[in-house]
Amino acid sequence: MKIAIAQLNYHIGNFEANTQKIISTAKSSHQNGAELTVFAELAVSGYPPRDFLEFDDFIQKCEVQINLIAEACFDIPLILGSPVRNTTKKGKPLFNAAVFLYQGQKEYFRKGLLPDYDVFDEYRYFEPADSFQCLKFNDHKIAVTVCEDLWNVEDHPLYVKQPMEDLILEKPDLIINIAASPFDYAQAEKRETVLRKNVDKYKLPLVYVNHVGAQTELLFDGGSMVMDENGMLISRLKFFDEEVQIVDVGIQFAGNQLSVSLLPEKIERIHDALVMGVRNYFQKLGFQKAVLGLSGGIDSAVTMVLAARALGSENVHAVLMPSQFSSNHSVQDALDLAKNLGSTFQIIPIKEIYESFEHALHEAFVGKAFDVTEENIQARIRGALLMALSNKFGMILLNTSNKSETAVGYGTLYGDMNGGLSVLGDVYKTEVFELARFINRKAEIIPENTIIKPPSAELRPEQKDSDSLPDYSVLDKILFAYIEQRLKPEAIAKQGIDSKIVAHVLRLVNLNEYKRHQSPPILRVSAKAFGIGRRMPIVAKYLS
Amino acid sequence: MKIAIAQLNYHIGNFEANTQKIISTAKSSHQNGAELTVFAELAVSGYPPRDFLEFDDFIQKCEVQINLIAEACFDIPLILGSPVRNTTKKGKPLFNAAVFLYQGQKEYFRKGLLPDYDVFDEYRYFEPADSFQCLKFNDHKIAVTVCEDLWNVEDHPLYVKQPMEDLILEKPDLIINIAASPFDYAQAEKRETVLRKNVDKYKLPLVYVNHVGAQTELLFDGGSMVMDENGMLISRLKFFDEEVQIVDVGIQFAGNQLSVSLLPEKIERIHDALVMGVRNYFQKLGFQKAVLGLSGGIDSAVTMVLAARALGSENVHAVLMPSQFSSNHSVQDALDLAKNLGSTFQIIPIKEIYESFEHALHEAFVGKAFDVTEENIQARIRGALLMALSNKFGMILLNTSNKSETAVGYGTLYGDMNGGLSVLGDVYKTEVFELARFINRKAEIIPENTIIKPPSAELRPEQKDSDSLPDYSVLDKILFAYIEQRLKPEAIAKQGIDSKIVAHVLRLVNLNEYKRHQSPPILRVSAKAFGIGRRMPIVAKYLS
Repeated sequence: MKIAIAQLNYHIGNFEANTQKIISTAKSSHQNGAELTVFAELAVSGYPPRDFLEFDDFIQKCEVQINLIAEACFDIPLILGSPVRNTTKKGKPLFNAAVFLYQGQKEYFRKGLLPDYDVFDEYRYFEPADSFQCLKFNDHKIAVTVCEDLWNVEDHPLYVKQPMEDLILEKPDLIINIAASPFDYAQAEKRETVLRKNVDKYKLPLVYVNHVGAQTELLFDGGSMVMDENGMLISRLKFFDEEVQIVDVGIQFAGNQLSVSLLPEKIERIHDALVMGVRNYFQKLGFQKAVLGLSGGIDSAVTMVLAARALGSENVHAVLMPSQFSSNHSVQDALDLAKNLGSTFQIIPIKEIYESFEHALHEAFVGKAFDVTEENIQARIRGALLMALSNKFGMILLNTSNKSETAVGYGTLYGDMNGGLSVLGDVYKTEVFELARFINRKAEIIPENTIIKPPSAELRPEQKDSDSLPDYSVLDKILFAYIEQRLKPEAIAKQGIDSKIVAHVLRLVNLNEYKRHQSPPILRVSAKAFGIGRRMPIVAKYLS
Repeated sequence: MKIAIAQLNYHIGNFEANTQKIISTAKSSHQNGAELTVFAELAVSGYPPRDFLEFDDFIQKCEVQINLIAEACFDIPLILGSPVRNTTKKGKPLFNAAVFLYQGQKEYFRKGLLPDYDVFDEYRYFEPADSFQCLKFNDHKIAVTVCEDLWNVEDHPLYVKQPMEDLILEKPDLIINIAASPFDYAQAEKRETVLRKNVDKYKLPLVYVNHVGAQTELLFDGGSMVMDENGMLISRLKFFDEEVQIVDVGIQFAGNQLSVSLLPEKIERIHDALVMGVRNYFQKLGFQKAVLGLSGGIDSAVTMVLAARALGSENVHAVLMPSQFSSNHSVQDALDLAKNLGSTFQIIPIKEIYESFEHALHEAFVGKAFDVTEENIQARIRGALLMALSNKFGMILLNTSNKSETAVGYGTLYGDMNGGLSVLGDVYKTEVFELARFINRKAEIIPENTIIKPPSAELRPEQKDSDSLPDYSVLDKILFAYIEQRLKPEAIAKQGIDSKIVAHVLRLVNLNEYKRHQSPPILRVSAKAFGIGRRMPIVAKYLS
């Protein structure tokens, strides 16, 4: 049976565009010989629709779209994801379902396992299905499952149920899984492993259809795939791009790889994911131009290159805002980068504004020494200047903070923490260096001096990040152990790190929840990013 | 049987303080004749611990505390809430349980219904219990339940299970419910109704123990209670304050009210809740002093009074920051309020700083007209000045935005949206007026002129809120219908509002998710506040 795998980029709540895309894809696939076209989880609404699912009108609109699609594709068999109503009057009001449409037939395959960890909130909206049945179509019996339904394969399973155990009793000849599986830099391998565990266990070929594209902070990398019943990868669609592929699923393909996209290395994946994240954020909001503060440091340099690749160099505007503490090389490094990219830039010194703040606060601050207050004033002047340009010219301000400084609060709220989108907020400083090297692998785009000089906020004379923070190699190790691995202080210290430094860093992480609460959305590239996937109390005492 | 109801204010992750409070309360209740002392849901850790529950070390610490309490109160029977491990190796790793401790005995009563709507995320962490049994103690058989376990009483129940249906088979003589039921201004009645439905159905007396105190944005109002088997309120503990009450639960109390605290009117509840919210935020973070911008308008005036009541007038510092657009009466109204309260204040005109921004941006803005950019610059200068004072003197900046303007984005990000805590962000403008009237009911604390003048941001000449927004009476009606009731545009227009105005307002609400994403935590007083309880996509198209 020829199945079209439609790996598309949807726009949440943009029903007209999503429906249009689904209909035209179904029609062209059909013309190209597909007997069944499969779209991703909640394709109709886009994923994740979040609390729009609580609006009855939003659900009605999903139903209307399903009917429009069913009508426009009357003779075209297809499967697509949509929220559907729970009509039993018991439990949550919705199911997350795969819907099969063909010649007036409308069949639902409801999701049984609802992820409710990290960035997922599905139990907030959906009732888990408690019974499962196969789709009978074209002399085939297909186990149609929705994403998490195949993920309960751990030794200590997260769910007490296992939908495939029910489905396998019907002796299906194929598994189809429609998914919304977001990117992190280790997810592609994990996904393949999990799917292969199902194939190995049930001895069935598997068709897996994922989303691609960015939905604010959530990045979907695509990589939809087909495995034969031996677990061999027959086909894998592109990463980070839309693609429709028709695969003839059946014994004839066994052992015969069709088209398997390359899986890039970790740092290239992060690079590509971030470029897609920036691009889609602007596209879907209807903006073209970005503005950012270019300091001469590595974070803003990497952010600018990613933005230029996402939006075009001509759509990225750099602003240099030197103060009395800025070194000459910083200005020069920033200028060199802007020129290398061919982007517009301007220089706005902040000295005069800073002095006007000093003057206004003179009386209030009498007898008080220069401290972090004055550092923050500089950062806030820059933040306000960038926002003024953003407001006046309709450019979105890109935030340039990295994950390490976001973690320990080494940044100024309403200053350098400003922005509509944080590009590097899930990238540790040591990874920012790797990104810079990756960007420069063929030619020096980011000035070498930006990469090799010691990191500094340049907010007081001779300041270096290492004055107040451990070396980034140590800091990032602690942060990874605490944030990603959730290890306790003693376990982190056992990795050969001074326990006082560990305690200090964990305290900083916890004390700075209040700052991160007001951070822009952060493009998520790791398994544990700051934002919706990490929910910590602000007022709490544990380790702080 | 004499039961002590311990309605206490816990601090999340502050194990030492929570344990100390639990032990001393258990001991004094015991001395006062209590045969059983009951503490609230997750009392050991504080509620909600959020993702700290994913840290094994945090769970270990809960276990250690339980053992410390069991040891210190060996001969004192008590029930308290704690996360406990799921040892079945299937499902989520934890249960949310009531733990009975007495003479080395440790019995668990696991929560079966896990709220996962609005501000709740319990399915994120906990496995729902699927079997239930009563506590046998002192010749009594007690149905020990945890919060939501009693809430599945709607005609279309949210959960397919019903723990009491299992428990009633054992013929208990009493229901105990330990809860973490947060405040909203209509919740006290709802809570009583829900509990009475259980009493009516099962013909059993009921002891209900709630939290009190603020946990960042979540406010717990207490109001723990006892009903006899006829649904009569025998006892109700204080609202917004700790209290321990011993009630002799048995036939002898039937029809005999002991001590039923008064339930204040809506606006007084909101007032008291906000005062508690501000007080606890500062106390639990270890701060004493607040700073805020006082504009002469009603929002900052009400915020300042609430802060003064929470922290003491001497701990609230007002900053007046007039610009060329500020009216004389605004400065005078602000001064009058500060003087009425006896708080310190200072005046910092922003003209000079504003001119320095104008000068710095002159070249970039050549040929461009005055627009919202310049309005925002003024707001951001004020925001930066307030943060400078906050940084230099260790005062927390209070945000003064109300729910109406937060909803439509009528506020400047990194300007007047700044603050560690939003006091009025869940209070519609029309309710802010009610609060002002309530505050002034005995004497004119807030200058009458602040209340009666037309609201204005005073960021351009002769500006009034009504220039760009519908009247607040109309705006708030639309907002309530959309945010609280989730009605669609057509249904809102049917309330007699121009459908173009409705569409415009809903569009503003949706387009401004990006601003609210960076808002401070908002004290929650309604059933649908901005923040953790309302999760909307930023990049979306529905109604925008």
